[in-house]
Amino acid sequence: MRKITKPTLLLDKTKCKRNIDAMLLKAKQHNLLFRPHFKTHQSKTIGEWFKEKGVNKITVSSIKMAHYFANDGWNDITLAFPVNILEIDEINKLSKEITLNLTLLSEENAIFLRNNLKHKVGIFIKIDTGYGRTGLISSDTDKINALLEIIKLSNKLTFKGFLAHSGNTYHAENTEEIIAIHENSLQELTSLKEKYINDFPEMIISIGDTPSSTLANNFTGIDEIRPGNFVFYDLMQYNLGVCKFKDIAIAMACPVVAVHTERNQVIIHGGAVHFSKENINYKGKTIYGIAAKTEKGKWHEVNEDIILTSLSQEHGTLTVSDSEINNITIGDIITIIPVHSCLTANLMQAYLTFDDEEIYHLSSEKAVV
Amino acid sequence: MRKITKPTLLLDKTKCKRNIDAMLLKAKQHNLLFRPHFKTHQSKTIGEWFKEKGVNKITVSSIKMAHYFANDGWNDITLAFPVNILEIDEINKLSKEITLNLTLLSEENAIFLRNNLKHKVGIFIKIDTGYGRTGLISSDTDKINALLEIIKLSNKLTFKGFLAHSGNTYHAENTEEIIAIHENSLQELTSLKEKYINDFPEMIISIGDTPSSTLANNFTGIDEIRPGNFVFYDLMQYNLGVCKFKDIAIAMACPVVAVHTERNQVIIHGGAVHFSKENINYKGKTIYGIAAKTEKGKWHEVNEDIILTSLSQEHGTLTVSDSEINNITIGDIITIIPVHSCLTANLMQAYLTFDDEEIYHLSSEKAVV
Repeated sequence: MRKITKPTLLLDKTKCKRNIDAMLLKAKQHNLLFRPHFKTHQSKTIGEWFKEKGVNKITVSSIKMAHYFANDGWNDITLAFPVNILEIDEINKLSKEITLNLTLLSEENAIFLRNNLKHKVGIFIKIDTGYGRTGLISSDTDKINALLEIIKLSNKLTFKGFLAHSGNTYHAENTEEIIAIHENSLQELTSLKEKYINDFPEMIISIGDTPSSTLANNFTGIDEIRPGNFVFYDLMQYNLGVCKFKDIAIAMACPVVAVHTERNQVIIHGGAVHFSKENINYKGKTIYGIAAKTEKGKWHEVNEDIILTSLSQEHGTLTVSDSEINNITIGDIITIIPVHSCLTANLMQAYLTFDDEEIYHLSSEKAVV
Repeated sequence: MRKITKPTLLLDKTKCKRNIDAMLLKAKQHNLLFRPHFKTHQSKTIGEWFKEKGVNKITVSSIKMAHYFANDGWNDITLAFPVNILEIDEINKLSKEITLNLTLLSEENAIFLRNNLKHKVGIFIKIDTGYGRTGLISSDTDKINALLEIIKLSNKLTFKGFLAHSGNTYHAENTEEIIAIHENSLQELTSLKEKYINDFPEMIISIGDTPSSTLANNFTGIDEIRPGNFVFYDLMQYNLGVCKFKDIAIAMACPVVAVHTERNQVIIHGGAVHFSKENINYKGKTIYGIAAKTEKGKWHEVNEDIILTSLSQEHGTLTVSDSEINNITIGDIITIIPVHSCLTANLMQAYLTFDDEEIYHLSSEKAVV
């Protein structure tokens, strides 16, 4: 592998492919449609690794992302984000070419789509099963019925089912709480299914988060899963108990630029523009990343002696134990697991594999204002 | 101005140029060299606005940024970041072409440079005047002397002076505290100057942060200022009392995609990949941005009825007052002042002016692994 000289996002291809295989197996075992969310990697190359395994449906979170993957041959895409009606031209362009599913939660948007769509789209109604970000409450059948009435009246809108994202699993204290959130989601969604399956025999229930998809073993009533983060996992998932440390497929390699032995601190080139300012509570402390023990550049085990405790724009400050501080020298490369792989990948714009393959992220494409 | 349909970073050119003029005037009034930090805007076009005013020296925080601006004709650049010895080839390439100043704080790096530099560079010794991130303590004359001895022995290294960045002003509770931090910095640095000016009659004292540079009126003993953020300012600076709201030169325009009247919340397209997850304590609450009252797209006054209280990857959640919630409709554009303009600009990769000029950021250039 080439010599690292600047902040670099490393990708362990073997771990990444293993994570894909594991989630694919999970979906098969539970007879679930697998529509992975591509917002985590946002890379055509990594998309190919899914394609090779037979995956042919994906999820994205912006119309820009949808176009990016459609340009690479993906032709069945769910945009799991409330429709932005201002982007109707982009929606019409894309729905002419591919099977596009949109996410709705308001009558006004349904009416707007009925009046402005040029081609058929699939519609998922977004249900809020407790995350509290957005969506209709499952018990609010008045609103759901009103929305379905508008959908039924349009020959451009096809009701595909109900879609939920239990983002509240990310705030769980332990894995039991994740399962409890998932079970509650399941209950709400299956009761919806029972209510509407006679009118819409083809409808499906789609759920999405990585913690539930990884940990749960009960998917009764669920038809489709849309996890995204599992492709890499990260420190947040490890801290939640969702993945093992060895499952984490990306890490930041950062050069040491200053050592302050007297206060057990090390300065790296690796700041908020590389890691993002996402942080977690790790064993009672707010941290931005944690080091890994490495062997020939590969990471295997957490190294709690080296913790990323502060970030400014380009600088990162590592707090280092007495036993480690004397082992670190200016010019060393420290391998750090980021808190949130989605945000770090978006900032870094590219990945480097152990065999020096450069893999690019959507954010590396020419910006368009 | 064109119709906004997606998260867009707006730049008010008039305000930006006014901010540049004001800081230039400040430097002139106090007889200070002006070496603005370009890490905030990272744009060749905005760099030209400085050039037009006679600015010919700049500061950057990475070798990549130095190359970017050197390619645009800037030939006197200070890299205000501890030298990354792994990038020696890049340093040698650049120092062949332009006047490059590097920042040193360790003997081992000084020796490395002495042994590996191919061309002359200027050297600033980094002094930590209380921020606690990195640098030598001003009273640690043993270390400073040792460093100067190595510098003196090399014909490639020219000692330029002492450089400090009072980043602790960002954690001040009020403007009085900012001034107190600045005065303390001044005192430490002028005592260093007195100590070393006889040996190095050309040496200068360079300081850097926007809060001090904007608010202070005493620059006794200081020769150069390197503020960066002032070019745009942001919510953090406004909250610190450093700038007026009307001085803030950038804002995010974000489409409304869902309205939850029942809980006074609005969902926008505008998340962590647009704003960054930087947050501040604003009147006792953790916030990620705040809306502005606008007139023909231009922002003038803060709108505390609409606050960005939560971010996920693509979603932003606005908490909206009773009086405002009924004025907001899906498809509206809300103008939001970001907490930290440097991080938002880096993520957005480009600016849009009121006359539809598209201005690009270094981060929009093709990524290189």
